[in-house]
Formats: sequence, C-alpha cells, structure tokens
Amino acid sequence: MSQTPISSLRGITRGFSMSIEQIQERLALVQPLDKEAMQQAAQHQQQLTKPAGSLGRLEEIAIRLAGIQGTSLPHIQQKSVIVMAGDHGVTREGVSAYPAEVTPQMVLNFLAGGAAINALARQAQAEVVIVDIGVAAPLAHPQLISRKVALGSANMAERPALTREQLFEAIQVGFEVLDATAEKGCHLIAIGEMGIGNTTAASAISAALLRQPVDALTGHGTGINTEQRQHKVRVLERALELNQPDPNDALDVLAKVGGLEIAGLTGVIIAAAARRIPVLIDGFISGSAALAACALNPAIRNYLFAGHTSVEPGHRLILEHLQLQPLLNLNMRLGEGTGAVLAMHILEAALHTHNEMATFAQAGVSEKEEE
Amino acid sequence: MSQTPISSLRGITRGFSMSIEQIQERLALVQPLDKEAMQQAAQHQQQLTKPAGSLGRLEEIAIRLAGIQGTSLPHIQQKSVIVMAGDHGVTREGVSAYPAEVTPQMVLNFLAGGAAINALARQAQAEVVIVDIGVAAPLAHPQLISRKVALGSANMAERPALTREQLFEAIQVGFEVLDATAEKGCHLIAIGEMGIGNTTAASAISAALLRQPVDALTGHGTGINTEQRQHKVRVLERALELNQPDPNDALDVLAKVGGLEIAGLTGVIIAAAARRIPVLIDGFISGSAALAACALNPAIRNYLFAGHTSVEPGHRLILEHLQLQPLLNLNMRLGEGTGAVLAMHILEAALHTHNEMATFAQAGVSEKEEE
Repeated sequence: MSQTPISSLRGITRGFSMSIEQIQERLALVQPLDKEAMQQAAQHQQQLTKPAGSLGRLEEIAIRLAGIQGTSLPHIQQKSVIVMAGDHGVTREGVSAYPAEVTPQMVLNFLAGGAAINALARQAQAEVVIVDIGVAAPLAHPQLISRKVALGSANMAERPALTREQLFEAIQVGFEVLDATAEKGCHLIAIGEMGIGNTTAASAISAALLRQPVDALTGHGTGINTEQRQHKVRVLERALELNQPDPNDALDVLAKVGGLEIAGLTGVIIAAAARRIPVLIDGFISGSAALAACALNPAIRNYLFAGHTSVEPGHRLILEHLQLQPLLNLNMRLGEGTGAVLAMHILEAALHTHNEMATFAQAGVSEKEEE
Repeated sequence: MSQTPISSLRGITRGFSMSIEQIQERLALVQPLDKEAMQQAAQHQQQLTKPAGSLGRLEEIAIRLAGIQGTSLPHIQQKSVIVMAGDHGVTREGVSAYPAEVTPQMVLNFLAGGAAINALARQAQAEVVIVDIGVAAPLAHPQLISRKVALGSANMAERPALTREQLFEAIQVGFEVLDATAEKGCHLIAIGEMGIGNTTAASAISAALLRQPVDALTGHGTGINTEQRQHKVRVLERALELNQPDPNDALDVLAKVGGLEIAGLTGVIIAAAARRIPVLIDGFISGSAALAACALNPAIRNYLFAGHTSVEPGHRLILEHLQLQPLLNLNMRLGEGTGAVLAMHILEAALHTHNEMATFAQAGVSEKEEE
C-alpha cells in the first residue's frame, strides 16, 4: 500500500494505535430508537390543536427525535456543523473544474467567516467546527482543528487512496471531534466538507457500496462540462478496476477509493449515533460518508436526517438506499454543510410546534366530529 | 343579493363607501420588478466564493428580492404574518370534519399563543397579526384586530357568499391591515387564515378562475373521508351552477363563492405588492386569494413566493398556474400561515448568503479554471 510522504511528519504512532476493534466498539454502542418515547410523542401530537397529521413531516420529525433523545418532549438548543477538509490525489487526473489550491483557500475563508456555511450557520445559531484532516498545504489558525492525517489522499487512479492506517486514523479524528463537540453540549450535528475532487471519491464509494455503474451516479461536480464528465467517468472506472474495493466491506471501500474528510465524517456519524445525537447530512459527499457508516451498522440510519437533495445524481440514489427523505429541495450543490444547516430550521420547527402548542383540552377547542 | 343579518350591527356606511375605483387605484400602483437591481444582484452572486449557481434557488430568491426592494443588496428584518379569520355559511352543508365553533376557538388559541402558527412565528421572530374579518361569534381581545364585515359568509349552495359591498369592505380591511403593518416597518409578509369550511370556498374560487372541474382540485380538507369528499364535490357543483361566477371577473368569483378572510387576504396581497413588500403565500386557501389577486393584476405574481405545497390538490394547480415553485414540501395541510412562516427561514437564508459572503477577490480564492 502507498504511504503519502507527510505521514512521517505527524506522530504516526497514534495512527497505528487505532485498531479495527476500536471502530467496532463504537459501532456496537449504537442503540435502537426508544419506542416508548416515540409512542408517547405520537400520542402528544394527537392532543395538539390541529387536525391529526396536518403538520405532516414536522410530526414525524418530532416523533423520531423523541426516539433518538429517549424523551417524549425532545429539545434542540446547542447545534454544531462539523466541516472536514481534505485533498484528493485524483485531482491530478483533471476531474474538477477548480484547482486543488482552492481547498486551503476555502478553509481560510471558513475561518474568516466569509463562506456560505458561515452565513447560514450564523443564521441558524450553529457553531462552526472546521477540521483540517488532510489538506495538501500547511494551514494554521487559532480556530482551526488541525488533525492532518496526510497531505491529501493518494491518486486512486494509480493506487489505493488511503492506507488502512490512514483510514483508521481519519475515523478516529471523527470520533474525537464529535466527542469534544458533544462534551461541550450539543443536541444536533450537521456535517459538511471541503475538498476539491471529492465528488469523484463520493462517486467511487457510492458505485462500490450501491453496486451501481459510475455513469449512473456521476454528476457535474462544481461545474464541469459534458466532455469533462465523461473523462471523470473513465477515471472512476479505472480507479474501481484497479483497486477492486470489496462492496461487502465499507472500510475497504473507504480506504481504496475514499478520502480523508469522508472517512472523518464517517467517524463523526458513528460517534454521534452512539451518543444518540441526531445528524443532518448534507449533499452527495457527506451522503457517501453516511452510506459507509450505515453499511458498518444499519441502526445508524435511524439517527440521520437528510438536509436536502443535491443536484448530484448519486445523492438521490444514496437517499433512496438509506430510505431517507430529504427535507429541502432547493437545487443546491455547494457542500460545506450548507444544505444540512439550512434544514436545522425545519428540525427546530418540528420541536417548537411539538413542545409549545396547546392541547385541545388546554385551549378549549372542539375536536373533530365523529364520522 | 343576500345580506347577512349582522351587516346592520357595524357601521355599514364604511362598507358602502368602498368602491371598485379604490380597488383599481391600488391595483394600478403595482410596478414591475427593478431589472437593474436584479442584474446587479446577479453579478454580485457571480463574485461570491462558491461555484456559480451552486446555491440554487437561494440565488434566484436573492435576485428576485433585489427586484422587489429595488436594491442590489436587499434585506429582511421585520416580518409579520397576517392571519385572517372568517366563517362560512356553506358549513351548514356538512362539508367539514370540524364544527364551525372551532373558528372562534382557534382565534382565541392564536391570541393566547397556543397554536402552530404562534410556535412557528416565535421561532421565525415574526409578529402575528390576527384579524377577525368575519367570525360568526362575538370575539374580543386586546390583541385582536376586530374588523368583522359580517357574521360569516352566506351559504354559497343557496345564494352568493358575499354581497358586492361585503366583498369591497373585506378587501378594504386587507388594505388597511397591510398599511398599518407596513407603516410600523415590515420587509416580508406571510399570510394565513382560519375558517372552518374555507377549503370549500378555495375549491370553488379555483375551479372558477382556473376553469377546472371541482373534482380535480377538491381534497380532504381537515380530514374528511372519501364519501364526505364526494358530498363536498356535489355541494361545490351545486354552488357553482347556482351562482354562475364569471371566470373573467375575479371580484365576481370572490363575491359569489369566496369568503371574507379570502377576500381580506386578496386585499393584503394587492396592498403589499403595491408597496413592494414580498408576500409568502401559505396553502390552498391563501393560494386562492393569490390567484384572485393575480387575476386582477398579473404583475402581482412577481411579489409572491410560495411557502410550500400543501396536500390539497387544488394548491398544486394554483401554483402551476402562477408559475410559483414551492419552497418547502413537507406534507403540511394546516393553514394558519404555518407553511409560509416556515419558509421565511429560506428567504432569509438567501439574503444571509447574498449579503454576508466574501467575494473571490476579498477571500483570495481562485476562480474556476478556463475550459
């Protein structure tokens, strides 16, 4: 397996100390939803001053959040969006409309508060957590969580994107970032990413795990044209042919054709579900992390909400597979966690109505006439 | 024309003083969007640190709000939801799952802050304006705007729902409520309604103005079953046959088969568009008010945003006709303005990104590579 030159620069011992057993331990912590809390929440919904079912998906969301938090009256106060950034060796194949230098530039834009995710997180009153898990450039900033596993992934068109050790360390970074966020208090996590070339990795992961041809789930990324998309499909076919990721082993898929920020987000999702914290997934890339996490433990799916449908065709296939219905459909395809943070308002709306509305008895409102 | 017994109870002179000329004057105030502001806003969007078009509908919203407000950097600070309540004589035909007494009960629930619209408006930081424009019961509350035109509409299955005078007065109430709200400062209006039986009125208005059979746009309202829905369709067919509303005259349609709260909302929409204030419409009933307003002046359509698609089939037909794409699709069918207020977050998100994001030059981010 390849090893990127940077791995000797950071204490590699830590990376090697992470084992498959530690990942399995976390996965085993994920519990089913609390059915009793969900039943109580559903009964509570029936008492509220509105025709039964008339709040539609807001009612379903409130009931599922009850099952996640294990209480009939769930609440969301503190919210965070965890944005992981990493680079992709496969950009050397010319798969993206933007040069790879945009990854560190955009990370600095996040840290300066000038990106879309910053504007939307301020609106939603969500903390923005930026993690450098593998940007191919030196980056330092007081607010940046620097956990560089490598200076980007290797070029999957030539060799596996990550070594097994890099993969495990990236997942561990996800665990640790989520743990630190949760320990400060957090009721809802959104996930986002930045990494030029990462729709290519997301396409490869999805093609492998969904057993679909890459052509069916490859889109136009940040804005490539039809010819460039055809090239991207050929690069993906070559990478999958060369690496032969095992569709029954999500860790093998993540290592061979994934990326550091995607593996990190897989770790965030696993750790959040293990702590019963709901996770809003964003677009195609964070969706591929969710797909991998759910392949490792299908019970994780119950802790996930799909913020929106992105324009990328692979995203729709992932959501269908996970049986997640997107909350928003606004033709967004930016990533960064933008669609997930925008959907925070919907989850909060579900709880505002669930927790604040008067019941028929309290308000003295007549109920529906018997048929 | 019929006259409801209550009309003698409130100073009827005012009602009679409202003329068709006054309505036409307001309609003539509605201006086209500011194309120059829209062009500048579109150019500004191209400079922001994101792939072109990647914020999807948020970009379109920001550009249209620029055209509405006449500035390349539009803003939304103060927001209000205007909820109009009225009763419907047609409930005597057994078209609703709920007894008519629920209308005043729910108005009191709004005033006590216990309804869904209150919870969602608190979340969105929107003022809630409740107007009694025709509830068939005495109602008094310090926060209630009491502008009762009549004790509900007449039974459209027996005679015209409103007299011409009642219609004009209801539209005038809409003008005045919007004027008072706008003069306190308001950048965005959502509209909502309460009125047992008003999906029947909305179906009749839509059938007439869209020239569609009632069967195609009649739904299950607050929760009637299939047999009850068939009965509702027959009542509607009878009302339309009896009243023969003129599909080329939206005022005739509103009078003959409308309702006081729907006519009032038509007035709110006209007055808001005339003042260049964007209006978020809610579900089927407020949609039927929007349909009538746009029939009176098609330029009004540019000032409207569709908060969501309700489950009512007629709502989808209205939105298609007005070429408005709903912002949310959460299977809601409550009314009260709930879907509109929930969509306020989306409109605000469009402006947070538009106004707060750094440009490529400001952030030192490389632009897309030339193809």
